[in-house]
Amino acid sequence: MGGDSNVSGRDSSILEFFAARVDRMRSSEIRELLKLIRRDIISFAGGAPDPITFPQKDQLNEAMEYISQNYMKAFQYGITDGLPSFREELIKFMERNMGIKASLNEVLITLGSQQAIEVLGKVFINKGDKVAVGLPTYIAALQAFNLWRPRYIGVPLDFEGMRVDLLEAVVKKYRNTSKPIKFVYVIPTGQNPTGTIMPLERRKYLLELASKYNFFIIEDDPYGFITFSEDIPPRLKALDTEGRVIYISTFSKIFAPGIRIGWIVATSEVMRYLSLAIQSSTLCPPNLNQYMLEFFLKKRYLDENIIRIRKIYKEKRDAMLESMDLYMPDKVEWTRPVAGFFVFAYLPDYIDTKRLLYYALEHEKVAYVPGRGFYADGSGYNTMRLSYSLPPPDQIRDGIRRLSRVVAKAIRKEIDYRTIEEAAV
Amino acid sequence: MGGDSNVSGRDSSILEFFAARVDRMRSSEIRELLKLIRRDIISFAGGAPDPITFPQKDQLNEAMEYISQNYMKAFQYGITDGLPSFREELIKFMERNMGIKASLNEVLITLGSQQAIEVLGKVFINKGDKVAVGLPTYIAALQAFNLWRPRYIGVPLDFEGMRVDLLEAVVKKYRNTSKPIKFVYVIPTGQNPTGTIMPLERRKYLLELASKYNFFIIEDDPYGFITFSEDIPPRLKALDTEGRVIYISTFSKIFAPGIRIGWIVATSEVMRYLSLAIQSSTLCPPNLNQYMLEFFLKKRYLDENIIRIRKIYKEKRDAMLESMDLYMPDKVEWTRPVAGFFVFAYLPDYIDTKRLLYYALEHEKVAYVPGRGFYADGSGYNTMRLSYSLPPPDQIRDGIRRLSRVVAKAIRKEIDYRTIEEAAV
Repeated sequence: MGGDSNVSGRDSSILEFFAARVDRMRSSEIRELLKLIRRDIISFAGGAPDPITFPQKDQLNEAMEYISQNYMKAFQYGITDGLPSFREELIKFMERNMGIKASLNEVLITLGSQQAIEVLGKVFINKGDKVAVGLPTYIAALQAFNLWRPRYIGVPLDFEGMRVDLLEAVVKKYRNTSKPIKFVYVIPTGQNPTGTIMPLERRKYLLELASKYNFFIIEDDPYGFITFSEDIPPRLKALDTEGRVIYISTFSKIFAPGIRIGWIVATSEVMRYLSLAIQSSTLCPPNLNQYMLEFFLKKRYLDENIIRIRKIYKEKRDAMLESMDLYMPDKVEWTRPVAGFFVFAYLPDYIDTKRLLYYALEHEKVAYVPGRGFYADGSGYNTMRLSYSLPPPDQIRDGIRRLSRVVAKAIRKEIDYRTIEEAAV
Repeated sequence: MGGDSNVSGRDSSILEFFAARVDRMRSSEIRELLKLIRRDIISFAGGAPDPITFPQKDQLNEAMEYISQNYMKAFQYGITDGLPSFREELIKFMERNMGIKASLNEVLITLGSQQAIEVLGKVFINKGDKVAVGLPTYIAALQAFNLWRPRYIGVPLDFEGMRVDLLEAVVKKYRNTSKPIKFVYVIPTGQNPTGTIMPLERRKYLLELASKYNFFIIEDDPYGFITFSEDIPPRLKALDTEGRVIYISTFSKIFAPGIRIGWIVATSEVMRYLSLAIQSSTLCPPNLNQYMLEFFLKKRYLDENIIRIRKIYKEKRDAMLESMDLYMPDKVEWTRPVAGFFVFAYLPDYIDTKRLLYYALEHEKVAYVPGRGFYADGSGYNTMRLSYSLPPPDQIRDGIRRLSRVVAKAIRKEIDYRTIEEAAV
């Protein structure tokens, strides 16, 4: 296939002529950085779950047997909205564990929650539509929405999540314009990247605003079960009486990402559009994977696993916070997550964490994600996301010790960034 | 969740205000019709493979063991382009069975070939771009492309596939305009819906045109292995020396649709864009499913299964053609497929097959797909697609007998359509 050299050589104009909207597609900074990470580096960069939280082998073997019993259907095409028997089990799971009630046509299965985000962008964002997001917020949601050219309205976060009072101010500002705010994208529990939890009062306030000013809320909840306290407020969807919350979640963190199954809960009217969009995009989710999860839900193995998983991540969260308390210089602030995978750190504002990363990788063999990509307004250059999900507690302690040395050096302005960046090129 | 009634009742304007581009999303006519099909109806409508062609249980058990050995990776996040070890096996499979040579960065794994089609539309179609398609062509490709508002240039088919001479005429016509034809979407082997095969000379001619007039070819090849003759011309991709062919295929017909895995072969330069688009859409394909297929490729079970599958579908194809020869009225013409799942029939032009379907379902309990949806120009109202993939040979014979009675009656103008449609409402 000599074609490769041909297109890029003789006639590179073919591709320029051919491609559309590639300007709106950029690789995630996280992903590009992850490529730099070698085995000897302690990484707080990725957000991958720890494989020790994955389903247990004997339970998987039972699930395989169940798939085998449903062989004919498990290997056939499914329906776009997802396997009905699986959705029924999921509805029961949500009712007993999340206080969310839904009927069959209010639940739709997706290829991970990423497809849920992408399809919401596809169905609902017209060019220039105003979408409110946290400053900072989940980078891959911004990337998925970007394709449709929304105008982001950034709403600052504090240690209790999105500042809903500031949201109200911007909602009011745009309410009588031709383009009011269409929806708010929010991660109320274990926010990515900050790890914050929005308290109940703020949740209620957000729902009141949605009703009063007529907008939708997209509640992204991948970490809703990765919680380290008994005192977690109910999901927005569980408090929603008007069908204004479009709830999305995933099995990636409570089962395993390799299964690529997420879901959406919304009114059947919203669902009709989402379903059409998914139909032309992937036809249907894999029945095979749905049967596997159906079994884990049916047997309540997933319920049991959630209890086990919480302990694992709590230990890691503790290791990170304790080490940060011990080693991080005074001038650094960070969140104290009660849910999720992440600690978010704010450095003095003369430090650019993206430039600092090269030094950290090279001299202390430790990795993190520079916070800037999570800010829709391009700010946050002095922030970093630290994930405790993958490394074991000992490595977390060691890594934080190393990172603290890097940060201390940066605070003392002892790093010559130019030399490092030249070496990196 | 009283929200549903609320949104549709008190304030249905919320959703109207909220939704974007839903005008470009329509449910497939096929899918809507399939909902009408009850158990007692013989259906030639769907294109689902026969479950007897699915992988054998003892081989599946071995594959489960293989997944278990690769447990940690199989359940973790994968990379966007697909599992490298799986792609390596796929490359060997293509080389030994398809004469296609590719390197690792020229192969990308998708969620069925539908995602391949969708992502090609996303990356390459700007509003008003000219895209040449067969008259008729695969309906779900049109639906996926529609979202981006291309201008379709319909190229008639004959019993040997797309009329490439007519394609040349339109390519010439638009070559010096501001919008020349960007790409041709073509299904050269076992075309959907006609079942035709494009002969070697025509394939070469198409590749020459692409080079001469500078356009790309999307070769969609789900039925490339479902062939009933030793004398099948090579795939366009195997003949491509300039990297102009973007090849897409799927494991749905040679393994099972429930696994939802397809793939793309293109130059690494094209791939870079496709990969970015997929990243923000589904992150990565499921590792679990890829390990399963990797095992079947490695053990060459898939190669063996293809031989078995061909016999199964050949028998069904024979049953359909023999019955049609026997029972169909003189004034009907149809294709004689040497590959794929479909026979396409042309009725006298005063017959509307969509209207006729209600009668067929009601009075003869037989289903087909009206051909009109496959025509980008809205013609084809007198055509129908008949799939022999799912029913067993005896049912095929019985169904064709029934359908022939319906068609004969329509030809004699003995059907009162108004009465039927009123009853259906």
